[in-house]
Amino acid sequence: MSEKIRVGILGYGNLGRGVEASVGQQSDMELVGVFTRRSPETVDTLGENTKVLHIDEAESYQDKIDVMILCGGSATDLPEQTPEFAKLFNTVDSYDTHALIPEFYESVDKSAEPAGKTAIISVGWDPGLFSINRVLSEAFLPKGETYTFWGKGLSQGHSDAVRRVEGVKYGVQYTIPSETAIERVRNGENPELETSEKHVRECYIVPEEGADKQEIEKAIVTMPNYFEPYDTTVHFITEEEMKRDHGDMPHGGFVIRSGETGEGHNQIIEFSLKLSSNPGFTSSVLTAYARAAHRMNKRGQVGAKTVYDVAPADVSPQSNAAIRKGLL
Amino acid sequence: MSEKIRVGILGYGNLGRGVEASVGQQSDMELVGVFTRRSPETVDTLGENTKVLHIDEAESYQDKIDVMILCGGSATDLPEQTPEFAKLFNTVDSYDTHALIPEFYESVDKSAEPAGKTAIISVGWDPGLFSINRVLSEAFLPKGETYTFWGKGLSQGHSDAVRRVEGVKYGVQYTIPSETAIERVRNGENPELETSEKHVRECYIVPEEGADKQEIEKAIVTMPNYFEPYDTTVHFITEEEMKRDHGDMPHGGFVIRSGETGEGHNQIIEFSLKLSSNPGFTSSVLTAYARAAHRMNKRGQVGAKTVYDVAPADVSPQSNAAIRKGLL
Repeated sequence: MSEKIRVGILGYGNLGRGVEASVGQQSDMELVGVFTRRSPETVDTLGENTKVLHIDEAESYQDKIDVMILCGGSATDLPEQTPEFAKLFNTVDSYDTHALIPEFYESVDKSAEPAGKTAIISVGWDPGLFSINRVLSEAFLPKGETYTFWGKGLSQGHSDAVRRVEGVKYGVQYTIPSETAIERVRNGENPELETSEKHVRECYIVPEEGADKQEIEKAIVTMPNYFEPYDTTVHFITEEEMKRDHGDMPHGGFVIRSGETGEGHNQIIEFSLKLSSNPGFTSSVLTAYARAAHRMNKRGQVGAKTVYDVAPADVSPQSNAAIRKGLL
Repeated sequence: MSEKIRVGILGYGNLGRGVEASVGQQSDMELVGVFTRRSPETVDTLGENTKVLHIDEAESYQDKIDVMILCGGSATDLPEQTPEFAKLFNTVDSYDTHALIPEFYESVDKSAEPAGKTAIISVGWDPGLFSINRVLSEAFLPKGETYTFWGKGLSQGHSDAVRRVEGVKYGVQYTIPSETAIERVRNGENPELETSEKHVRECYIVPEEGADKQEIEKAIVTMPNYFEPYDTTVHFITEEEMKRDHGDMPHGGFVIRSGETGEGHNQIIEFSLKLSSNPGFTSSVLTAYARAAHRMNKRGQVGAKTVYDVAPADVSPQSNAAIRKGLL
């Protein structure tokens, strides 16, 4: 039995907790500890025996950790943390600001490459698994259209927006892919669709006592950019219903490539996710790619990498011979 | 502009024709020629200018071809051809006898590795894209079940079986995934399902004049192994209808992984294909992986490989920087 991959977690929010749980499911990994900016004694971990350490101690763990999974946010944490920690550890992160990925990649590569470390960036489902499906399906069907639909899922940004409306006590917003649009794509019609035609929005609101519901609804559905271009439905519910029915963070979506092969046949490739917990799934993808970071580093594949650089065999806990025999 | 990848085709049936068409859609490839066991002058190609050569001339094309795409069948052609041609060329094939893949891999590796060639075996959709999805989704969700459904699609073996029934003039058989079974899996029920519970079978039969339709139907639905364990429907149609409606070779299917992440959330990953032409799609996958064989060989990654060894970036016609910017 080969030695286990020693994993560290940096940052302990929803994603960090998810990685902790996920490492526990992987037979070839062990969790060394969680590193946090908070006072370690104030952090309540999922596992009773999980070691919590201050982030300043991370550097002294260089020889005790094979891969550090970075669980900070994309807005402010990762742009600083990944370049810093990729000098010390092999890393995996879920940087998801699509437009800034090329800059982020360069900045991480400059740290990781000279240090001889492997840093897989932007891992998760979008960017991540959806990205793999976009690239492969376009390679197979060069003549065609790719459609990405998101949802049904809780959107953090849109939930924040409805909460800012006067008279709203609590509120959540779900992005829901339009069934009509998906059906047209699946039928090979290759329609031109704006994001607003591909999705509808549904809000669940607990109004403040005495608030004018009609005014709240109007303020939401007419909100520019966020809701105005969309088909938006507003539901008013009680505080109890909010707690009971809207505490999870479901998400998911579809990547569909509809194309034509050389002899004029329509071909459709579809990849979809239906997730009860968005952070729970993202962290399980991060954890599996930590295995790839470790293996690639041992082979000398150093520097910044993305899911595009990772062969499927490196993500699997089984040997290449075993997956050839059992799963090919 | 870099030089085009020079592709050869060995074997010119449905798959070879599909590869010919597919190479025409790939901007970075050019077709050198088709190699056949038949007399070249008797072969009618899709493209007017496609060069047809006898298979015995292949060896003299070693310096003119970057990748040879092997389009023979798995029963008798590929077990001989891949080991033979992997000594001379980088190759891609669609060997699909699942149970014998480990042996086939070994035999190809023994030829390709010492010759410094890269031979990607068992490329297509199953084995191929379905295999990738099985491996990745099990790595992300170690606790769960994987379900593979095939269809709706024309099954060659079952079509042959109905044609052997007395009184059948023409016949085709479609394998259709059971909607009920798919819904149960998508709902996260993780049911235990036999292959016969996951699929139903539908036959379209043109009877010989004067044949007893009831006898034909009975002979089909009670046929052991092929039809007896399945819910089978037999439709009688005219010769005209057969020609008009059943000339294509559609296929497809679903790989669904239903699992639970560490904190107890159900998560579902689904990959599906809806193909108007099975050989048309398989050949477009083969063609895209020819690009990977060429690139991997240039980097010194030689020997037998499978889709598990290929990073997504190597399948794409775009540069790694371009896909990071545009598709991640």
